[in-house]
Amino acid sequence: MTKELKFATNLAKDAGKILMDEFGKAKILKTKADKRDVCTNVDLKTEQMIIGKIKENYPDHKIYGEETGKTNGESDYTWIIDPIDGTRYYISGIKFFSVSIALWKDNEPILGVVYFPALDEIYYAEKGKGAFCDKKKLKVSSISNLKDSIIALDIACSNKLELSEKKTTTRRLETIFANTYRIRLFGLGTFVLCSIAKGGFEGYFDLTGKEKVLDLVAGIIIAKEAGAKITGLDGKYLGKNTSHVVITNGKIHNKFLELINSIS
Amino acid sequence: MTKELKFATNLAKDAGKILMDEFGKAKILKTKADKRDVCTNVDLKTEQMIIGKIKENYPDHKIYGEETGKTNGESDYTWIIDPIDGTRYYISGIKFFSVSIALWKDNEPILGVVYFPALDEIYYAEKGKGAFCDKKKLKVSSISNLKDSIIALDIACSNKLELSEKKTTTRRLETIFANTYRIRLFGLGTFVLCSIAKGGFEGYFDLTGKEKVLDLVAGIIIAKEAGAKITGLDGKYLGKNTSHVVITNGKIHNKFLELINSIS
Repeated sequence: MTKELKFATNLAKDAGKILMDEFGKAKILKTKADKRDVCTNVDLKTEQMIIGKIKENYPDHKIYGEETGKTNGESDYTWIIDPIDGTRYYISGIKFFSVSIALWKDNEPILGVVYFPALDEIYYAEKGKGAFCDKKKLKVSSISNLKDSIIALDIACSNKLELSEKKTTTRRLETIFANTYRIRLFGLGTFVLCSIAKGGFEGYFDLTGKEKVLDLVAGIIIAKEAGAKITGLDGKYLGKNTSHVVITNGKIHNKFLELINSIS
Repeated sequence: MTKELKFATNLAKDAGKILMDEFGKAKILKTKADKRDVCTNVDLKTEQMIIGKIKENYPDHKIYGEETGKTNGESDYTWIIDPIDGTRYYISGIKFFSVSIALWKDNEPILGVVYFPALDEIYYAEKGKGAFCDKKKLKVSSISNLKDSIIALDIACSNKLELSEKKTTTRRLETIFANTYRIRLFGLGTFVLCSIAKGGFEGYFDLTGKEKVLDLVAGIIIAKEAGAKITGLDGKYLGKNTSHVVITNGKIHNKFLELINSIS
């Protein structure tokens, strides 16, 4: 474990402690994309703590925060943080949320940590060194056909789609539903990507194309280091501007891309 | 808290202790409806422990177990138990599962307990006495329009549908997707019904009609005692043979039934 990973896991646990201490007490400060997409005082407080610690330990590094945006600088390194993935669950008192911290360099994450404070469970990965949950090495599932696969979908901003986007999205939803074992919709990307890394599901697909890669990076490197394949709909390597991200156990990747791309 | 509720909450916690002790060690004993619907040695061991304790404390009562079926007897009381809701998550090492225990009398549950061992979080309710999570009283959400509502769907056995059922199911899926804030698919009924009780989602609908009421009863009384409305598609009172169960916060119930029933 490098110094950076040790720093990031400790930081995620410190952030998780704030989330548990403030659980049930959060106040909504503002709505974002729509009235159920919110930012609370706890998101801000936690993000500020994380940013403070990064600045103290890595003063040259850039920081991109879910709530406060990005800092400027010359460094090749950017920390990407989401103080609460699952704010909507958090404010409802549902213990289904995480802290997510990643370090990005040269168009890809090189380190990722996802911590589920209510479970005291931590997932982490570094580029080329494998992925782990509470020290146990993770590996994607071995299922190789679509009809036995569980696919978790992301439908962020589904209520904001243009009519033509809505039609394509619905046709894709129908097609995936008809050709796989089960579809799942959790509304918690970190949970999905960590579960793919553990072999619980075979794939993830951003159905609406509204999920930003930067909001998924910690989970992406964890899934990748457990053996997942990650591309856009064109099957090409992921950059931060990729939309409609597809993440699978690798074995179903081409079949899944074919299925989606068969839909006009 | 009656003696029966105290007994049931202690029993659920004892069962949860087995699940956590055996976590990561479960072995699949047999597949059920299909190859991903499984029963493990831990389901059986836990169910046997629960049944033993019920027989010891309530020798006259009947018992209906998810894995071992029902016992006979003359009593008006039937304990309905599911040792692991979420066995598929459990065997994948994903901490998203619960123990569910209910007591049924006169065509309805009169007591329900759902325990999430990995969170050490317990939900419980008795008829006419409200619903609670870790002693905190629960209340359904106050959202009253569909376009702001989050609806969790159940798609049990979606891969086993006849062609005509599949078409209706797909049309309903599309329609709900198009007319609500978000749809969710968790594959964990207890989580959904407890979260409705907490106000996290506005509704639940058994999209495929394959989910048995008896598998939902503990969650049903918890949701109901928190203010939820529960009917079949015809809007009528629930009996154990109802299919396509609809559970909402009450405020969206009629609008949701209208929406579903508008689909031919």
